[in-house]
Amino acid sequence: MIDLRSDTVTLPTAAMRKAAYEAEVGDDVYGEDPTVKRLEETAANILGKEAALFVTSGTQGNQIAALTHCKPGDEVIMEASAHIYLYEAGAFSALAGVQSRPIQGVKGAMDPAEVAAAIRAEDIHFPETTLICLENTHNKAGGTVIPLDNMKQIYEVAKKHHIPVHLDGARLFNASVASGIAVREYAKYTDTVQFCLSKGLGAPVGSIIAGDQAFIHKAKKWRKRLGGGLRQAGMIAGPGLVALTENVERLSDDHELAKKLADGINNIPNLKVENDVETNIILVNVEGTGLTVEQFLEQLKQIGVLAVPYGPTTIRFVTHLNISKKDIDEVLERLQAMVR
Amino acid sequence: MIDLRSDTVTLPTAAMRKAAYEAEVGDDVYGEDPTVKRLEETAANILGKEAALFVTSGTQGNQIAALTHCKPGDEVIMEASAHIYLYEAGAFSALAGVQSRPIQGVKGAMDPAEVAAAIRAEDIHFPETTLICLENTHNKAGGTVIPLDNMKQIYEVAKKHHIPVHLDGARLFNASVASGIAVREYAKYTDTVQFCLSKGLGAPVGSIIAGDQAFIHKAKKWRKRLGGGLRQAGMIAGPGLVALTENVERLSDDHELAKKLADGINNIPNLKVENDVETNIILVNVEGTGLTVEQFLEQLKQIGVLAVPYGPTTIRFVTHLNISKKDIDEVLERLQAMVR
Amino acid sequence: MIDLRSDTVTLPTAAMRKAAYEAEVGDDVYGEDPTVKRLEETAANILGKEAALFVTSGTQGNQIAALTHCKPGDEVIMEASAHIYLYEAGAFSALAGVQSRPIQGVKGAMDPAEVAAAIRAEDIHFPETTLICLENTHNKAGGTVIPLDNMKQIYEVAKKHHIPVHLDGARLFNASVASGIAVREYAKYTDTVQFCLSKGLGAPVGSIIAGDQAFIHKAKKWRKRLGGGLRQAGMIAGPGLVALTENVERLSDDHELAKKLADGINNIPNLKVENDVETNIILVNVEGTGLTVEQFLEQLKQIGVLAVPYGPTTIRFVTHLNISKKDIDEVLERLQAMVR
Amino acid sequence: MIDLRSDTVTLPTAAMRKAAYEAEVGDDVYGEDPTVKRLEETAANILGKEAALFVTSGTQGNQIAALTHCKPGDEVIMEASAHIYLYEAGAFSALAGVQSRPIQGVKGAMDPAEVAAAIRAEDIHFPETTLICLENTHNKAGGTVIPLDNMKQIYEVAKKHHIPVHLDGARLFNASVASGIAVREYAKYTDTVQFCLSKGLGAPVGSIIAGDQAFIHKAKKWRKRLGGGLRQAGMIAGPGLVALTENVERLSDDHELAKKLADGINNIPNLKVENDVETNIILVNVEGTGLTVEQFLEQLKQIGVLAVPYGPTTIRFVTHLNISKKDIDEVLERLQAMVR
Repeated sequence: MIDLRSDTVTLPTAAMRKAAYEAEVGDDVYGEDPTVKRLEETAANILGKEAALFVTSGTQGNQIAALTHCKPGDEVIMEASAHIYLYEAGAFSALAGVQSRPIQGVKGAMDPAEVAAAIRAEDIHFPETTLICLENTHNKAGGTVIPLDNMKQIYEVAKKHHIPVHLDGARLFNASVASGIAVREYAKYTDTVQFCLSKGLGAPVGSIIAGDQAFIHKAKKWRKRLGGGLRQAGMIAGPGLVALTENVERLSDDHELAKKLADGINNIPNLKVENDVETNIILVNVEGTGLTVEQFLEQLKQIGVLAVPYGPTTIRFVTHLNISKKDIDEVLERLQAMVR
Repeated sequence: MIDLRSDTVTLPTAAMRKAAYEAEVGDDVYGEDPTVKRLEETAANILGKEAALFVTSGTQGNQIAALTHCKPGDEVIMEASAHIYLYEAGAFSALAGVQSRPIQGVKGAMDPAEVAAAIRAEDIHFPETTLICLENTHNKAGGTVIPLDNMKQIYEVAKKHHIPVHLDGARLFNASVASGIAVREYAKYTDTVQFCLSKGLGAPVGSIIAGDQAFIHKAKKWRKRLGGGLRQAGMIAGPGLVALTENVERLSDDHELAKKLADGINNIPNLKVENDVETNIILVNVEGTGLTVEQFLEQLKQIGVLAVPYGPTTIRFVTHLNISKKDIDEVLERLQAMVR
Repeated sequence: MIDLRSDTVTLPTAAMRKAAYEAEVGDDVYGEDPTVKRLEETAANILGKEAALFVTSGTQGNQIAALTHCKPGDEVIMEASAHIYLYEAGAFSALAGVQSRPIQGVKGAMDPAEVAAAIRAEDIHFPETTLICLENTHNKAGGTVIPLDNMKQIYEVAKKHHIPVHLDGARLFNASVASGIAVREYAKYTDTVQFCLSKGLGAPVGSIIAGDQAFIHKAKKWRKRLGGGLRQAGMIAGPGLVALTENVERLSDDHELAKKLADGINNIPNLKVENDVETNIILVNVEGTGLTVEQFLEQLKQIGVLAVPYGPTTIRFVTHLNISKKDIDEVLERLQAMVR
Repeated sequence: MIDLRSDTVTLPTAAMRKAAYEAEVGDDVYGEDPTVKRLEETAANILGKEAALFVTSGTQGNQIAALTHCKPGDEVIMEASAHIYLYEAGAFSALAGVQSRPIQGVKGAMDPAEVAAAIRAEDIHFPETTLICLENTHNKAGGTVIPLDNMKQIYEVAKKHHIPVHLDGARLFNASVASGIAVREYAKYTDTVQFCLSKGLGAPVGSIIAGDQAFIHKAKKWRKRLGGGLRQAGMIAGPGLVALTENVERLSDDHELAKKLADGINNIPNLKVENDVETNIILVNVEGTGLTVEQFLEQLKQIGVLAVPYGPTTIRFVTHLNISKKDIDEVLERLQAMVR
């Protein structure tokens, strides 16, 4: 079975397992786990932020951002197909009590002028806009890299209105590797950043949320309320540290394989890649095959390939740590046979 | 000063004041105010619903709908410029903890197919869609009447998915009078309805939320939590009853005057009416005058006419109970002089 | 029927009805209702606070206090049988997301040392204490007057910890009339105050929440979210103003009648007044009659007297505007006959 | 340094590290991690519940219980010094919007009659009681074992009112080992149970929440919203499984050492053990030493022993996996020297 459903399905590397096995640990609720601390400091340094916090998932990091930046009744601007808006089970409203204000972007990037126009004026009828969320790379748009300049312009709009910016950087390292721009450059244009150690970097569990000291201090209490205050967390922070320090550069392999897969698919009649494949995500329109998405995925499974539904006529493939060039050749071969 | 800011600015009629003066009252928290009861029964009858509840505002009625129909973490579909979404200070998320899912409509009407497509499938990543909200007439779209058939189609989509429909009918009677379709016909395609006794009907205070008995039973406790459980509420329900029984037909006067105002404005160079004036709302684009909305409104005030900002280059006029044909003539005359 | 269930059941006086009839009104959402403004200014003056806001009920005023003073996850200290805790349907937690921290008082008064001990230290496991609520008179304790000095001591504890104090003064004027201490003296030891125009003062609808300008500014938006933003609210603020300016002194009549009723009841075998009757509330233990509370209240109804259940063996009587000396004589006579 | 602050400070055993190293893993968001599944099935079996869910902490398990069992505005009964009430940062109210109703227990056990009396009747002023929480062993009461019969009686009260019971069994295995009653016996008198794999069982991270299938199905979405949906979670579930299968019986060692420590302390002048030491927690009153809790803990630290503050004059010691008989001897010796 070649599993291209998501880069979350990767298996921990030997180095990660070893890191878990040997992790120097302590009770992190007391702030005494040296491995967690090392991970947090390393992450903060890479991002150029004052402080960082280890959280158990990207969703937890994003929720903590809303809970810490906002009050109930506030409004948060985000792209209309942001993960936060579509795939976090409505938690922004359920937990932080904030209203989401989606703006339709182009390839995942919002027009800074539209962001500016969406910021609420002072009026008894209006919520207060207290957060702008970005996502880079943008999952639903097909792993597109949000241009640094777009982030900069939105950040400037935000700062003009004294509004913090949060980056859902679940796949920020993919953006960085694809663009050649350091993650700390991207992080310059956000007040807080969340990135995943799992996904492309391949860690079994965990994400990082980073920002200034005051933010992280408050964030810790919200993490505790959500149940993310862990004890000997070094057992998973250790593998996370391996992921962060050893698995960044190799993301270019995933991107290459994604392009290879996309090119191959475009050569198969009735299949059409919908996105510019800039990183590790390939969105494929299967309408031409006459099959529904469900039928197509079922047939795909029969031939030993896994993908996920991603729209009424779209499926998504994601390359990752456990996918080799040979796997991609194999997938293309099987796909060709199947569609024919 | 001719006040065209909103139909909320109307002064109570002599009959309403008399109704307050003479109201037979009791403690409505104990369910003993006969005037409130009469109003609620009258409203339920007119709407063809089992029961109705007197609330202090349209916002309160809408919030109670979300609080009663939904759980935190649910998603509510509504038109992208719905009053609930834009003008209730984010309260759906703040109070009910629900995520709003705005859909861009045409003249305020959502495409039933788009509503269907927005309903969430069962998935761990998705909120549950548990409410669809309509607004008729649609304020932001310019007081447009949502066609009965559009409501019917959306209702059928909703019922197929076992999702309740709530109608923000703040100006439902305007829709009814304009279309000649009884409010109970509209109400057929919603599970719960809110309409305002203030606004076009001219009552000083209050709205109605109606639905089945079970809904109203739960709604009462949420009304209490919001502080809407009143004592001798007959003092305001009395005027509300006058509004509901005496001021419906006369809405056609407001609509006529609105059309007259719109026609006149379209004859003034550099001003352009943006909406089909179907009821009592006129949206005017003032860009051609070279003035900003703020400047235009300020000059308008100087000549004794009040309106409100309604977009980057748009202002809104609303006709109502206290506006006469002579007022409209006067407004047009002054406007012409001002713009020239 | 002699109705002693609550002082909320009073009927509006002729002066109140006239005030409604003649009220000068405007759209209060635009801040243009002169009667509401006059009421708010009058109330602020009486309380010695910068500003006041007209709300539709005591519950709404209290909820707005929590929503404005606190953030979700905070803790609020209050007496264990406070109205806010027992009788507002859990709204503090439902709406403001705060945890209530009840402290058992004596006659409704908390020990300042216990309040101090309950204030949370800084710790990742603890909510932040951000509000202390008092209630004066204290309903459940039997309309007891919380001593000014107790309020002062708690206020000093609060200020030492930079925590605001909110007073649920639903019946603050009863406390003032009973003690001879001006309401503004009580208000000195609270940051915000809510009092009811209905209840003892006899208005049909409404309460006041007062505090400093910054508080009231924020409170207005929460009032709007709760649906308490009204239009021509002068129609009910007018009667409220009559209540506030004409009905304060006469509360001493209610207190006298309450004492008379209590004395009479204590002379009836098997009935026992449980509270010191300091104001207008009488708590009567009916255990000695061998009847359950439900049975007792039912028999009471048969003889034309209404009261409410108030504990496993306790019922509550409240004197008010519509109860005369003759009524009390009548009640005692009937009671005597019934219990015999 | 001999660390007796909490049983959360334990270091993973070699077997646990090995279990992490060798864990068979998959993406648990897709339900494909075999180690997590094995842990969940094992836990469900031990508890005699239909299903179980791996969560990242006891707090997360408890929060999920409230979020799944209750609606905002509901009331939850719990003992007045329950961990849920005192040490979860007010999260029940912040996240689930429920009001806590603390009842003072004796040694952590609530009187079933008081629980029954606290259940709310149907009334517009009342929240609905929708959950009763127990804690066994009871941390703040000093690790006391709540008697099975007490749980049974409360459960019967709850069932009579159709209210679910949740057990915060963070240290349920300590109760079981101390009493000789199987955990599944305790679990019989609760609808849902949370227990910690960390704490006494010694796992580095994680807890279990168990109940019926319908509960667990809903719980999963709330876990996702809180950010507890993990990927290759087998890396921590593996050690958890070791903890659950290998470390239960040995809890009796902790209990023995706790008694030994308590006996020794009671022989030291000016120190007094406050609790019946039934399991692994010892509460010591240090007032007799003339030192404040802070001073005492500081001096304790100087002599290489760690404990935590637990009241105005109380400190807490907890025995655990990493504490030997020799450690206890050493602690007693040093304490004696210090206090002298």
